[in-house]
Amino acid sequence: MRSSVLFYSTYTLCVCLGLLCVLFVSCWTSHWGGAFAWDYSALQFNWHPVLMVSGLVVVYGNAAVVYRLPFTWKQNKFTWKLVHAGLMLLGLLLSAVGLCAVFDYHTGANIPNLYSLHSWVGICTVAVFALQWILGLAGFLFPCSPLWFRSSLKPVHVWLGKSILILSLISCISGINEKLLFTLNGSSEEPYSSLPVEAKFANSLGILLVAFGLVVFGILSKNKWQRPETDRERVQLLHTEDNTRNDGCT
Amino acid sequence: MRSSVLFYSTYTLCVCLGLLCVLFVSCWTSHWGGAFAWDYSALQFNWHPVLMVSGLVVVYGNAAVVYRLPFTWKQNKFTWKLVHAGLMLLGLLLSAVGLCAVFDYHTGANIPNLYSLHSWVGICTVAVFALQWILGLAGFLFPCSPLWFRSSLKPVHVWLGKSILILSLISCISGINEKLLFTLNGSSEEPYSSLPVEAKFANSLGILLVAFGLVVFGILSKNKWQRPETDRERVQLLHTEDNTRNDGCT
Repeated sequence: MRSSVLFYSTYTLCVCLGLLCVLFVSCWTSHWGGAFAWDYSALQFNWHPVLMVSGLVVVYGNAAVVYRLPFTWKQNKFTWKLVHAGLMLLGLLLSAVGLCAVFDYHTGANIPNLYSLHSWVGICTVAVFALQWILGLAGFLFPCSPLWFRSSLKPVHVWLGKSILILSLISCISGINEKLLFTLNGSSEEPYSSLPVEAKFANSLGILLVAFGLVVFGILSKNKWQRPETDRERVQLLHTEDNTRNDGCT
Repeated sequence: MRSSVLFYSTYTLCVCLGLLCVLFVSCWTSHWGGAFAWDYSALQFNWHPVLMVSGLVVVYGNAAVVYRLPFTWKQNKFTWKLVHAGLMLLGLLLSAVGLCAVFDYHTGANIPNLYSLHSWVGICTVAVFALQWILGLAGFLFPCSPLWFRSSLKPVHVWLGKSILILSLISCISGINEKLLFTLNGSSEEPYSSLPVEAKFANSLGILLVAFGLVVFGILSKNKWQRPETDRERVQLLHTEDNTRNDGCT
């Protein structure tokens, strides 16, 4: 009971931080970046931070912890696998559209793509995310996937799942920092170093994102909050070399 | 036996990636940044990336996985606690000197401190690292620390330990990106977007850092690679609400 109250308090914090992240990034880009458009202009760029923060971090993080919700434990696991995969697909699609937004903006403004470290890490993040989703679909949702493949995939899926969240946080924080350096130092009136309101606001967005990511990690790390395994799952796991029970998000 | 071979292969990869990170950051700052000095000049700044990459990521990551080395499992745990704490202290001191380097450089060049998102995340990282070290000393090295404090601290220590590594990676990647934007876009000959050799080299350093961090996470996540507990430790853990056995780096 006490554990359940602690879980739901932490989960509520996670959801609130996620919503705050989406609110902050939307306010930042709409208030200081102008508005939104899909016309190869700087207004199209504005979709990039909104969609990456929403898809790559907030939706992804919520999808990762979906198995931890205690009210789902007595329900069919396959249903929740579909919810997990569906949310992950939503996060992946939002990220893909977010990438299109920045590529189109670069094309319109004649700016080369993929030169900064932020862009290198970012493109790797989305590529690994897509690979993880396809492997997850093949291993855990296709009913005909062999047991050896499912068993071998599970520890990799768990490790890659956490790795993608780390990569997403790195991509978003370096991206917000890069955008502020370009925008604020481009106009000499209020450089980044004078910490104008926009800088304070977007820096706070970065801190909120990091806090959200660390709360998601906290939820994933707590053994008591894992979905209990059925006897059938336990027998299957005995056949595998690595029992990942206490470290999984699948 | 097979698990041990896999561990030592992964650990060798971890050590090699760590050494490569230190080599790359030293080459980057010495070849393109000039040399090293401690005179409030840009040459003093050069210590900043070298010390943060070395202390906050490479030494920290190696200190985190020290309990996983199988040859230590039959040795006295307290000795390895001292090694863990000693390496962490080394990492913390290197990071603190790295912070002094950038603060001094800013003072010399009349640049405000702590305005960018990189600096906000970075200063939080070192502060949390220092707090974690002090709490770890009080909880796990002081012989008179009460069992309830030790037991309550362990899951927090494990979660904070991983969180600090995530924060360190975010700080270093955003810092390398920021430095390249300042240096390369400051001189119009070879802007960052033209991907000169320095940009490719420093971006590769960033990718190496991320790879190192994810390998450390892989080692920490694998249950079979954890130091087995003694009967006494198991009894102690029964008194705690959270059995963190399968998720710990302490």
